[in-house]
Amino acid sequence: MGLYKSIIAYDGTDFVGYQRQADEHRTVQGTIEQALGKLGWSGNAIIASGRTDAGVHARGQVVAFELEWAQESDVLTRALNANLPRDVAVWDTQPAPDGFHPRFSARQRHYRYTLLVSSHRDPLRERYAWRVTPTVDLQAMQATADSLVGRHDFAAFGRPPKPEGTTVRNVLRAQWDQVGERLSFDIEAEAFLYHMVRRLVAALVAVGLGHSRPESVTVLLDDPDARWQGAIAPACGLCLEAVIYD
Amino acid sequence: MGLYKSIIAYDGTDFVGYQRQADEHRTVQGTIEQALGKLGWSGNAIIASGRTDAGVHARGQVVAFELEWAQESDVLTRALNANLPRDVAVWDTQPAPDGFHPRFSARQRHYRYTLLVSSHRDPLRERYAWRVTPTVDLQAMQATADSLVGRHDFAAFGRPPKPEGTTVRNVLRAQWDQVGERLSFDIEAEAFLYHMVRRLVAALVAVGLGHSRPESVTVLLDDPDARWQGAIAPACGLCLEAVIYD
Repeated sequence: MGLYKSIIAYDGTDFVGYQRQADEHRTVQGTIEQALGKLGWSGNAIIASGRTDAGVHARGQVVAFELEWAQESDVLTRALNANLPRDVAVWDTQPAPDGFHPRFSARQRHYRYTLLVSSHRDPLRERYAWRVTPTVDLQAMQATADSLVGRHDFAAFGRPPKPEGTTVRNVLRAQWDQVGERLSFDIEAEAFLYHMVRRLVAALVAVGLGHSRPESVTVLLDDPDARWQGAIAPACGLCLEAVIYD
Repeated sequence: MGLYKSIIAYDGTDFVGYQRQADEHRTVQGTIEQALGKLGWSGNAIIASGRTDAGVHARGQVVAFELEWAQESDVLTRALNANLPRDVAVWDTQPAPDGFHPRFSARQRHYRYTLLVSSHRDPLRERYAWRVTPTVDLQAMQATADSLVGRHDFAAFGRPPKPEGTTVRNVLRAQWDQVGERLSFDIEAEAFLYHMVRRLVAALVAVGLGHSRPESVTVLLDDPDARWQGAIAPACGLCLEAVIYD
């Protein structure tokens, strides 16, 4: 029995989320476990770097599982892909080192959030982006994003995995880029709170649209009792790009 | 009663095609007619610049319809969008000149076909592209595409709308472009035969992959009895970009 680590990509639109549920709902975890089942896997559950919510996409989700497999790991990747639907793919499979755990061994996570700045609905682009209109002030959004970088208490923007856990997180990068009507926000941290990226994006976009002042966001940092009162950015714009290990 | 012209965009994935069918299948035409029905439209059928096949996308489909509408055409666009599902959008509505017909008045059509050159499946990009692997010879594909430009008998690559109609078409542009792993093929003509773009793309890709020699494609041009024997490129890579009128 060997321990394997796979890099997974998925279009989250038609899933109720990563995590398998008791009912019949379609989940990423359940879909991968079904494909593994056809290759003889009979474990309780595969382990992921983290759960993504309903509608959130991934290009760099990492899962680990134990499997009796006599062939090369490339053959395992192909065999898994042959058993997966169009909206989930395995990009790479490697034997994992002893004690590897996709969540606890992760050193860093990278998410990207995509905006589409357009006055009209776009069926061919809105599957993977949040459309905002009429225009956003990219400089103001970047200046506010700069203030997020570093070790802060992000209690205002999300809750920790464990009820009493710390809400301090170390943001390593928070970068906006523009290509035409498409704006992307790359954010990297050692770990994130639940819904933290989508709340931060909503707050930054509120600044970009002129609905909030930059100070109204930065004043929430390092205040354990503050709460972001605005919306949460839609799931469709968010993608888990990569999880980094030593 | 006024005649209106609308520019329509759609994600063709979840439609059985543009044209309304007798049965319950989901079509673009049927979906737009339903939305128009809620605004008081009671015509027999809206008219389009042409039918797109199941799975083919559009950013520039043009439809015309008669409607009793007292307000500005911008308000009509918004009212239609409010009644359309996520995968269809109206981008613009204008009063059409007398005698305007989306198909017969069209002077030129522009299609784009998108390839993804990648060794692995990609759930986030394959909805709008045909994945080919391992690599293609772009120069050979462009050289072959160059030979398509001009007035030729394309009988080998498609059939005309009417059984006895001409198979001569005038191709004005046939251009490959590359951005990273994404190759796009822009082709413009006064009009196209059924499946002509997808057969031409399949033939060009066969050249690019080294499966066919360029001459095996060009020899089929201007020969009314020749037939392209290879595959047809998948619908998901094709998008009707624009229809041009005087």
